[in-house]
Amino acid sequence: MSSKPQWEAVAEAFVTHYYAVFDADRSQLSSLYREPSMLTFEGTACMGPQAIVQKLVSLPFQKVQHQVVTCDAQPVLPESLNGILVFVNGNLVVDDGGQPLKFAQVFHLMPDQSNPQAFWVYNDLFRLNYG
Amino acid sequence: MSSKPQWEAVAEAFVTHYYAVFDADRSQLSSLYREPSMLTFEGTACMGPQAIVQKLVSLPFQKVQHQVVTCDAQPVLPESLNGILVFVNGNLVVDDGGQPLKFAQVFHLMPDQSNPQAFWVYNDLFRLNYG
Repeated sequence: MSSKPQWEAVAEAFVTHYYAVFDADRSQLSSLYREPSMLTFEGTACMGPQAIVQKLVSLPFQKVQHQVVTCDAQPVLPESLNGILVFVNGNLVVDDGGQPLKFAQVFHLMPDQSNPQAFWVYNDLFRLNYG
Repeated sequence: MSSKPQWEAVAEAFVTHYYAVFDADRSQLSSLYREPSMLTFEGTACMGPQAIVQKLVSLPFQKVQHQVVTCDAQPVLPESLNGILVFVNGNLVVDDGGQPLKFAQVFHLMPDQSNPQAFWVYNDLFRLNYG
């Protein structure tokens, strides 16, 4: 394949946007989630935009920066739904603290029925990898 | 929830089985993949049981041990398909080498149509987290 598959381009654009919003003001992430959206953050599960954003806002840091090291993507069955699985590995710098933390995160993106260029997060799983 | 959701029990049983087979004889993993199965291993993509197992068998180690540290799971839309997203973080010990490598892996499992208790791997994404 000479050019990037469409799902990889979507994944990279989504991840760039998601972490830019997260790092600027994570209370603004709710529009990227829907009622059936699920987040499992360090083993704690919650569902729906309100609960998910409440969880993210409650995390014990003020400033945060996500540095994406790798971003892999695959299309998800059935093709009619056009879901995309995104797997990010990267570094997390919090509150200007020294050594970055390593994280891994999975997003399962679904296209907006009324705007197939826009995607929302159906599944979201996050883990820190302690050194 | 007092008892574990069904998808978590499936995920844990699958992961235990998958790594037991991998660590004993990874050439035997092909029955867990189907023609549409996709593997992205350290950024290299391949498709179908034959190509996937060929990739896994070609990895440059003889002995390997996967140690699962965390195993998270979520159900995947649409519910009618009963897919399960599994997110593993763990340690990889290769060829009795000293310091384990950290890895993260995502599986998207689909139930066998003829035996809904059995699952195959539709999506598989693997990354080592270098220290």
